[in-house]
Amino acid sequence: MPTPPVDRARLLRRLSELAQIGRSDSGGVTRPGFSPADREARHYMIREAENSGVPTAVDAAGNLWLGPRPHPGTTTLVLGSHLDTVIDAGPLDGVYGVVAALEAVENLAPLDLAHPVTAVAFANEEGALHPQPFWGSLAASGQLPAPAAVPTAYDGTLLRDALTWAGGDLDAVQQARLDPDQLLAYLELHIEQGPVLEQESIPIGIVEAIVGRVQLDVDVMGAAGHAGTTPMPGRADALAAAAEIVLAVEGLPADGWCQVATVGRLEASPNSPNTIVGLVRLTVDVRDTDEAQLHGVADEAVRRIETIAQRRTVKVSCTRAAASRPVLTNTGLRRSIAAAADRRAMPTLTLTSGAGHDAQMMAAVTPTAMIFVPSIGGVSHVPHEDTDPGDLVLGAQLLQDTALAIASHPGSLR
Amino acid sequence: MPTPPVDRARLLRRLSELAQIGRSDSGGVTRPGFSPADREARHYMIREAENSGVPTAVDAAGNLWLGPRPHPGTTTLVLGSHLDTVIDAGPLDGVYGVVAALEAVENLAPLDLAHPVTAVAFANEEGALHPQPFWGSLAASGQLPAPAAVPTAYDGTLLRDALTWAGGDLDAVQQARLDPDQLLAYLELHIEQGPVLEQESIPIGIVEAIVGRVQLDVDVMGAAGHAGTTPMPGRADALAAAAEIVLAVEGLPADGWCQVATVGRLEASPNSPNTIVGLVRLTVDVRDTDEAQLHGVADEAVRRIETIAQRRTVKVSCTRAAASRPVLTNTGLRRSIAAAADRRAMPTLTLTSGAGHDAQMMAAVTPTAMIFVPSIGGVSHVPHEDTDPGDLVLGAQLLQDTALAIASHPGSLR
Repeated sequence: MPTPPVDRARLLRRLSELAQIGRSDSGGVTRPGFSPADREARHYMIREAENSGVPTAVDAAGNLWLGPRPHPGTTTLVLGSHLDTVIDAGPLDGVYGVVAALEAVENLAPLDLAHPVTAVAFANEEGALHPQPFWGSLAASGQLPAPAAVPTAYDGTLLRDALTWAGGDLDAVQQARLDPDQLLAYLELHIEQGPVLEQESIPIGIVEAIVGRVQLDVDVMGAAGHAGTTPMPGRADALAAAAEIVLAVEGLPADGWCQVATVGRLEASPNSPNTIVGLVRLTVDVRDTDEAQLHGVADEAVRRIETIAQRRTVKVSCTRAAASRPVLTNTGLRRSIAAAADRRAMPTLTLTSGAGHDAQMMAAVTPTAMIFVPSIGGVSHVPHEDTDPGDLVLGAQLLQDTALAIASHPGSLR
Repeated sequence: MPTPPVDRARLLRRLSELAQIGRSDSGGVTRPGFSPADREARHYMIREAENSGVPTAVDAAGNLWLGPRPHPGTTTLVLGSHLDTVIDAGPLDGVYGVVAALEAVENLAPLDLAHPVTAVAFANEEGALHPQPFWGSLAASGQLPAPAAVPTAYDGTLLRDALTWAGGDLDAVQQARLDPDQLLAYLELHIEQGPVLEQESIPIGIVEAIVGRVQLDVDVMGAAGHAGTTPMPGRADALAAAAEIVLAVEGLPADGWCQVATVGRLEASPNSPNTIVGLVRLTVDVRDTDEAQLHGVADEAVRRIETIAQRRTVKVSCTRAAASRPVLTNTGLRRSIAAAADRRAMPTLTLTSGAGHDAQMMAAVTPTAMIFVPSIGGVSHVPHEDTDPGDLVLGAQLLQDTALAIASHPGSLR
């Protein structure tokens, strides 16, 4: 079967235009899920798809479908990722996989395939504003709690309203759930966001495992007071306690509890130079590819936090705010990717993903795999996140070739 | 000479009405200098003064005069404090001294005194929004640098504009400088903000010394990155470095470097659960009554910060943002206060102020003293800051009695 070439100019143009949506003074992209910039990016993708004659739809969870939604009587191959970003992010995380997925849908549309191929942009993967990462893929894979947990955004926006603006409907969110019988597989193309491919000079990564993640939301409650008149011995300084917590969390990987651990968000209150901090809210992010290990480290983090609180006579509350399970990808799909890469003589490397992905959620309902391309300097979630254009085109071609190979064979993977 | 009684009902009514201006959901008062709430409090005081026939004026630095401004041909006794607050403050810090000063001006107005008595509300004592604490008293005592340092507020407002709204004029700010030859003395009544008077069950404190303060603004520059894919060893986590700084600062008093040390303000960026913190901005507040000690501790703080930065491969910049010198109050004035207290059989205690006050600035140009009343629980800069109403009236009466005694005698203190 002939393999259509990826339209290099169109792929790079779309990435470059999308990088302008949510761009801040620092040159970074700030496009958190359900923010005005995120809605602008969705409208951009809808226009691009419709210009190519690709039908679009938004489901109740706010997921944007570019191509047919999976439907009864057939099993659909879903290609996707997300359009939303963290604060001050780079131009590729998530959006690259969506643009490449649309490219594949467009190029494969003229072909007569055994299975439909469609693209999806899952809503709010990062959870940078509404603190429920993987919102859209959790809904699509039927893993949202019912009734849906409804986090309030860090800026006070209600998810109910944000979802309505995006074309979704919180009350009907269970309708976004996909029927596993209507799915052939899920494939996600993404930048590596780590240093391995660049260090090994290999353009394609085939992901074997994705780390799981637990996020704790921690409130530290001390006693505010005048910074000049409150003697040191009687203080219950919430920021000093939080500082010990930050360091205790940082120490978890070195002590063998997990692969990485990070306090990425910390807010002090009242936050005035002249006043002892009375309240700190912070997040703890711990990750590991082993599920038992992941539960263990979350418990250990809480133990360390409570020990610090007790010694410093502050109060703490720890809430498990978000979690994703570590997953292994599908062996058959990994073989299909490797075979497609071989046909183009692309060198590949099997590796682990340190970042969470929508693929993790989709793995619960359908065979799932991921393709990585190198990140320059191994960095991501920063404005200078980048990938060589040649690698971007290579990855998109491999996604399309693999999709074609899988979708051409009736009953493949089944 | 007969001593007029303080109008208890009027004093407490004004304090209670002012406590409503800038009140937040938490029950605290948020009225930073030059904020809309601060302007509302100024207008309230202007109306109250004018209803009593007391003339009012705003000088170029935004200081609000309730009574005659000091002028040639006479030496004026100035009573004052400030109307602005920190974020989420209590109802008494500063405002009590201004309300009591106006009360004294009103009650002494009918008397034929050797020296005029006037009240002043110094602008932006706390520096909670525009980060130049003691702005007004620095200007009045001729201690503002020329041209004036013009801090931008934490909310981005320009001091130039804020000052214009308050009735001041940045270009003419040197005109707010008082001529020492036109000043008799400066007296400030304030809540203690600490635990000493309450613990000793004594209603009146006579302040012997006021601590000096150095504030450092510290920027910690690390490298933002993905919280999942960036290996722990290669990180330059600005928040982890800042956490060590918070604890190093907290340790300064225990190591004998100063009386108190506080990190009261910390902002992390990008501040997203999923991203390693790349930048932290924090403030360091150190205080001591010994000037040499104060310089020593500021240097030591910078040394500790730079050592941490070097070990963690982050960059830091430390700026001395604000400073006030420790001062001893005037012996003659302290004796006058003690004598006035004796005439009313009020028990007094001589103590040190752990908080900075406008009196510190005024001590550079005129004999200065302070009267304290007890703070319930020893707390301040928190919503539940409070003082027994009986103590509030006692303090106001003592301020007025002392003012009468000093202003009645031609050439007193000279």
